[in-house]
Amino acid sequence: MAIERPTDPYPDQSWAGWGDSTQVPALSDQILGLLRDGLGVKQPGRTAGDLDDVCLASGRLGENALDALREAVGADHVLTDAAARIRHTRGKSTPDLLRARAGDLAAAPDVVLAPASHDQVLSILEVCSQRRVAVVPFGGGTSVTGALEPVTEGYEGLVALDLRRMNALVSLDEVSRVAELEPGLRGPEAEALLGARGFTIGHFPQSFEYATLGGFAAARSSGQASAGYGRFDDLVLGLRVATPKGTLELGRAPKSAAGPDLRQLILGSEGAFGVITGLRVQVRPAPAACLYEGWRFESFSAGAKVMRHLVQDGPQPTVLRLSDEAETALNLAQPTELGSGSGAGCLAIVGYEGDEADVTDRSGRASGVLQDAGAVKAAGAGEHWARERYRGPYLRDALLDAGALVETLETVTLWSGLDDLYQAVVGALRDSLTAQGTPPVVLCHISHVYRSGASLYFTVGCAQLEDPVGQWRMAKAAASDAILSAGGSISHHHGVGTDHLDWYEREIGELGVEILQAVKRTLDPDWILNPGVLVRR
Amino acid sequence: MAIERPTDPYPDQSWAGWGDSTQVPALSDQILGLLRDGLGVKQPGRTAGDLDDVCLASGRLGENALDALREAVGADHVLTDAAARIRHTRGKSTPDLLRARAGDLAAAPDVVLAPASHDQVLSILEVCSQRRVAVVPFGGGTSVTGALEPVTEGYEGLVALDLRRMNALVSLDEVSRVAELEPGLRGPEAEALLGARGFTIGHFPQSFEYATLGGFAAARSSGQASAGYGRFDDLVLGLRVATPKGTLELGRAPKSAAGPDLRQLILGSEGAFGVITGLRVQVRPAPAACLYEGWRFESFSAGAKVMRHLVQDGPQPTVLRLSDEAETALNLAQPTELGSGSGAGCLAIVGYEGDEADVTDRSGRASGVLQDAGAVKAAGAGEHWARERYRGPYLRDALLDAGALVETLETVTLWSGLDDLYQAVVGALRDSLTAQGTPPVVLCHISHVYRSGASLYFTVGCAQLEDPVGQWRMAKAAASDAILSAGGSISHHHGVGTDHLDWYEREIGELGVEILQAVKRTLDPDWILNPGVLVRR
Repeated sequence: MAIERPTDPYPDQSWAGWGDSTQVPALSDQILGLLRDGLGVKQPGRTAGDLDDVCLASGRLGENALDALREAVGADHVLTDAAARIRHTRGKSTPDLLRARAGDLAAAPDVVLAPASHDQVLSILEVCSQRRVAVVPFGGGTSVTGALEPVTEGYEGLVALDLRRMNALVSLDEVSRVAELEPGLRGPEAEALLGARGFTIGHFPQSFEYATLGGFAAARSSGQASAGYGRFDDLVLGLRVATPKGTLELGRAPKSAAGPDLRQLILGSEGAFGVITGLRVQVRPAPAACLYEGWRFESFSAGAKVMRHLVQDGPQPTVLRLSDEAETALNLAQPTELGSGSGAGCLAIVGYEGDEADVTDRSGRASGVLQDAGAVKAAGAGEHWARERYRGPYLRDALLDAGALVETLETVTLWSGLDDLYQAVVGALRDSLTAQGTPPVVLCHISHVYRSGASLYFTVGCAQLEDPVGQWRMAKAAASDAILSAGGSISHHHGVGTDHLDWYEREIGELGVEILQAVKRTLDPDWILNPGVLVRR
Repeated sequence: MAIERPTDPYPDQSWAGWGDSTQVPALSDQILGLLRDGLGVKQPGRTAGDLDDVCLASGRLGENALDALREAVGADHVLTDAAARIRHTRGKSTPDLLRARAGDLAAAPDVVLAPASHDQVLSILEVCSQRRVAVVPFGGGTSVTGALEPVTEGYEGLVALDLRRMNALVSLDEVSRVAELEPGLRGPEAEALLGARGFTIGHFPQSFEYATLGGFAAARSSGQASAGYGRFDDLVLGLRVATPKGTLELGRAPKSAAGPDLRQLILGSEGAFGVITGLRVQVRPAPAACLYEGWRFESFSAGAKVMRHLVQDGPQPTVLRLSDEAETALNLAQPTELGSGSGAGCLAIVGYEGDEADVTDRSGRASGVLQDAGAVKAAGAGEHWARERYRGPYLRDALLDAGALVETLETVTLWSGLDDLYQAVVGALRDSLTAQGTPPVVLCHISHVYRSGASLYFTVGCAQLEDPVGQWRMAKAAASDAILSAGGSISHHHGVGTDHLDWYEREIGELGVEILQAVKRTLDPDWILNPGVLVRR
């Protein structure tokens, strides 16, 4: 096959919100009333103004540096205009959005580069190493952990290295079911190119519509169908990486005993060790049939037990998630109809993708398990979830506009520790925000399941204070402390970035940090790649 | 639960052969005739003499060093006698056995230590770092890649760190199905302790009867039932590692997005980065039912296609292996009845382990797939395989005694490249040994399968020359070159050791090597841990 690319350029995201701003829902009077009466929201939040009205300081890079970069990627692909720089400022966490809306764009890159090839990336890294310019690799810009906000003190400037032009399906090995892809492909672009040939990656995180394949790998993303298809890091067979010290080509086979698995050093490295310029990824036949069902349990713990049963003893669904009582009651499945009488208990989404016979077989057997455990089918809930699965961030934008503070966080542990972890995090968030005078609602669902454990995904809402960023930082720190104390990992799928760095260092210990520093010094001796992200100097 | 240990000490292995020497089969006159007429074997090989008759130079460590080590582990656990040192010399590759039989014990350690705890291991590493004494961590001693033969030039001596006293089942989390185990447990010991509680790890490599859990992790072992249970590295959730720079505690959860997966740096590190002193491993309910079937295909390629179909589209068996025409004809399933008319074609072993319903369901559906592809059931072959599955090394001992050179090697690649890799390796082995005047038989089977690829396991037999070690090294180098040229990995499950180091460096590239060196310097700055294994200074 010839190399294939998407025909149209991918639309930009809203500069101070998620995705396509026309998709942000209007909140009903009922919801606004609940925000006011339930959470104490007194006034609207700052909204995103017009991009053209934003004031941005001039870039720091001089013409000499810019010329060298123009030489590396071509003058047309060196962007210094304010709009490009603003669109490459930070990511999409709530603090990121709040700061953008408040006009705080201190983290803006001085220039945006769009290389077209591995060799161009190497050239950029060479120029930037020589000139002590920091580089932030930029895919979909969907980080929620500060991974797009490097610490640039002591550097001559900051380059955002946008991978959008590296967006090819390079090859497809239909026998081995392995696709070679470039890192700048967005989720839907990759699925469209592969889908035309009958294949899918099966990786559908909430960020799917804007995030890129390179970002999935760099941040160890996990998708909503991970029970069936695996996490993204499970699907990566090979990586090509451009570093200031040259090229790494990793992975010759599905698995190998030839030493440590160096792919696993790059997966999760968040741009701090190198720029992923190529991926070989496991693909599967696009499913002929998809079935998503809602099942209602009496309690979160009863539902969790059945989730565990299904993943440990089968039949294993493709999608498995379970909302706690609070999330079910607030009915996030119908976000614009908050509190619309979704009933008591806990709602699980159980999905199956495959050929018709497989879906019929698995869903039949799983339904038996679910019914034996007392679960009751919730009509329409599965289809509703599937329809709305990527819309959470738009609801957040609407709620931020309305003056609520809304953010998510997540963690993972063993099944035996899941309830303790759940209680600890809910308690920490509630205590911190209540002490700040803004008692929150805290919602949670089990988002990803493994034989030995599961992840917990929390959504928090309360009224914004004067300084909502500081307000959230304090609550997040309390939650992060609680996660570590309860034995959880500081992130199941969002990554480390700058936000989680303090807790990540505690998680891996001093010697673990020293390993990362040694790898960093080896691949990036001038420490230009995403400085301050993942590993401190 | 309380900590549990095996009640009896584990039997020593034969010092110059595999396992229990009373298990070595007598070769029939028919086989001896085939060796003579088919392979040109003219005279018997050297056999292993009595251990007590072996001459060994005195150890190099002085009393000061020995006293410091006695302080670290207790005087009773510092062994300097010849028998202990000889039993800890090298591993179980054919070159290892041939050299032992020839009286070449130059690689013997100066002392054998048997620590009982993580802290004692730390103390040993401290003493050895201070005194520039090399340390080879020693589990079952089953390495076949020279991983137990460090390069000790420039060191004051060599310590074999035998982990046999660290053999506890520390805890079992039945909810998460995670066992905490010490590294010195042998395969059968771990299975017995877990089996008493209804669980299994499901890891059954050919070395199972003598290899240890620490070794499985350090060498990225893969078992015969990996299609069902996964490779050992897939099963490891957590690792405790003693290094000269302190302790690493890795892994809080099944999976995490908190940075690179540092567990994957220790898995496959072959004792060069640290000593694994504790493991948390995924376990499963011991299967109520096991069924192993033989299926005969017309050709290797026809069989390979069906293996691929089963692993890609299911139903996935627990055991999947397929012998090529030569291996089938020589009927390795009945090793003592070589050439006993097993018929034409290629034999596959397809096994299922699980509860009764699961085994019935999967075997029924898989049989349909196999029959549709024209495979014919081979009565008794599955049971025979299961009975004989750990006996290959004993047959090797008998054949070495008889004057044949017999060795195995293995590799892995994508399905699309499997046939090219197969042809390349068979051709290289045949050409090299034929050029040396000893035309070989080369047998092969697909030993482990993945969605995207599979491993190939080769067995080579020919007549021994005067210098059988040199003879094999030359053939192995040709095969290793062929593996890399054909895109394979230099090892699927045997590891790197010292034997594969040249090719491993080519596989991961200069920058990959530099990463390993940087990690090594960080954890083991005095470079005492298994020097020359995995990574060169």
